[in-house]
Amino acid sequence: MSVYDRLSLNTATTKRLNLAEALAAASRADLGHVGLWRDRVAEVGLEAASTMVRNSGLTVTSLCRGGFLTAADDAGRHAALVDNRAAIEEAATLGTGELIMVVGGLPDGDRDLVAARQRVADRIGELAPFALDHGVRLVLEPLHPMYAADRAVISTLGQALDLAAPHPAAAVGVVVDTFHVWWDPQLPEQIARAGREGRLASYQVCDFNLPIAADALLSRGYMGDGVVDFGTIGRWVTAAGYTGPVEVEIFNQEIWDTDGDEVIATVKERWARLVEPSLRSPGPDPADRQPATAS
Amino acid sequence: MSVYDRLSLNTATTKRLNLAEALAAASRADLGHVGLWRDRVAEVGLEAASTMVRNSGLTVTSLCRGGFLTAADDAGRHAALVDNRAAIEEAATLGTGELIMVVGGLPDGDRDLVAARQRVADRIGELAPFALDHGVRLVLEPLHPMYAADRAVISTLGQALDLAAPHPAAAVGVVVDTFHVWWDPQLPEQIARAGREGRLASYQVCDFNLPIAADALLSRGYMGDGVVDFGTIGRWVTAAGYTGPVEVEIFNQEIWDTDGDEVIATVKERWARLVEPSLRSPGPDPADRQPATAS
Repeated sequence: MSVYDRLSLNTATTKRLNLAEALAAASRADLGHVGLWRDRVAEVGLEAASTMVRNSGLTVTSLCRGGFLTAADDAGRHAALVDNRAAIEEAATLGTGELIMVVGGLPDGDRDLVAARQRVADRIGELAPFALDHGVRLVLEPLHPMYAADRAVISTLGQALDLAAPHPAAAVGVVVDTFHVWWDPQLPEQIARAGREGRLASYQVCDFNLPIAADALLSRGYMGDGVVDFGTIGRWVTAAGYTGPVEVEIFNQEIWDTDGDEVIATVKERWARLVEPSLRSPGPDPADRQPATAS
Repeated sequence: MSVYDRLSLNTATTKRLNLAEALAAASRADLGHVGLWRDRVAEVGLEAASTMVRNSGLTVTSLCRGGFLTAADDAGRHAALVDNRAAIEEAATLGTGELIMVVGGLPDGDRDLVAARQRVADRIGELAPFALDHGVRLVLEPLHPMYAADRAVISTLGQALDLAAPHPAAAVGVVVDTFHVWWDPQLPEQIARAGREGRLASYQVCDFNLPIAADALLSRGYMGDGVVDFGTIGRWVTAAGYTGPVEVEIFNQEIWDTDGDEVIATVKERWARLVEPSLRSPGPDPADRQPATAS
């Protein structure tokens, strides 16, 4: 047992590292889990990536990402179904049951958010049985509302759970990413609901930095560098019964420009101080746990 | 009757104009209403401003703004109460019953959003009787979640209505500002609720421009320049029974650098094309626009 047991390195955090380098860096840092992105898998090919991951001894906590389901035309709809079926098969081959879904924004020039959201509901309905057959869950990710037009029309955890509701919990789940949902006044009750409904598939942590970066996608930061209250949100997630790995996923140009081992060391330090204490179930006495080892 | 009857120029849109210039420009453009900011009133003094407004023949649709209620220390709490009581008196003197409230963000270094939101509830409770006595309504403004840490801890219309609920509708209302709420999956039901509860005090329009401006506060745009679906939101507001003036309030450096008369001409053109048609009653039944998955 160490305080890092549940820490999973999402490889987007060490963006400059290719798959082999990221797996090696995670192993060097004594981590047990990684979250993978499809582009890094595609670089080496699915079978080779799968072998590399198995040989690393690391578990894959999620594959990022499926989604982009909002096309309004038949060709776009067909392409999305083909791509998402491929992503489901990739997840299964890589040994993870969780496919993170970033559902896409409005088509160019389109402002009909209500209709786009309905198309997402329809596409999820078409993909859910295929996912279930492959032992993979479509994990709906609510994105911060500042991305509602250009990245993901799912903007709250409650909305994600509403979209998941018609489907089995083994087919459609949700992810809580602190960057995207920290502001939500309904967050405590929706996290509890996600736990109750068996859909809390993943917990991802990083901070929300201010001011918002020039490229708003890169405004994520190391835990502690922004405004997120990790203690409170972590306790809500823990109270909802989540006991799985927790991914650290940071898009940030300065972090991407930093040496990977140094990034992981900083991640571990912030994790041990700001995140891990909130994940301890209220039952056991924290004094029974091993002290944090220096990174 | 003209299509501009309900158009109110919020004077922040013509930021470089002082109060006299803004009133003159609105009158030249045959507008009937203005929304005022306290700094422009303070420049000439409250009594002079009040006289100027009365002489202009324009009605004042709101005063911006009270708020900034989140201080955690006694001195900050006291200062907020003093300032908001002054704002309430200013609104009454200027002849408007609507004081827009931007409630403030987290104190420096503080990440406890739950506690900050509770302080807002407490301060509203302290101010509501004073507002009611003066015939002024505290109009709670939900701001876009990207401002939840540094500008306003009220992030959704539903949350604003929850905060208003303990108080008489004549004391605490809400404003729907398209820039801040366009993304909200609960928007149709919360607008309907605001109407039902008699709290829909103001409707403000401007667009949400992408990419987000370097100063995120200035990402507002002319209607039609961004991603907001004014037709749909306007029909929801109309179906909720709102028949009052509609303020056009745009913070945008390029617009601020443009001649005021030219800005107002563009506002009128966009208004007539994109906003006014959605305000004609009766609109289409909003129920048929709601996503099937809405809870």
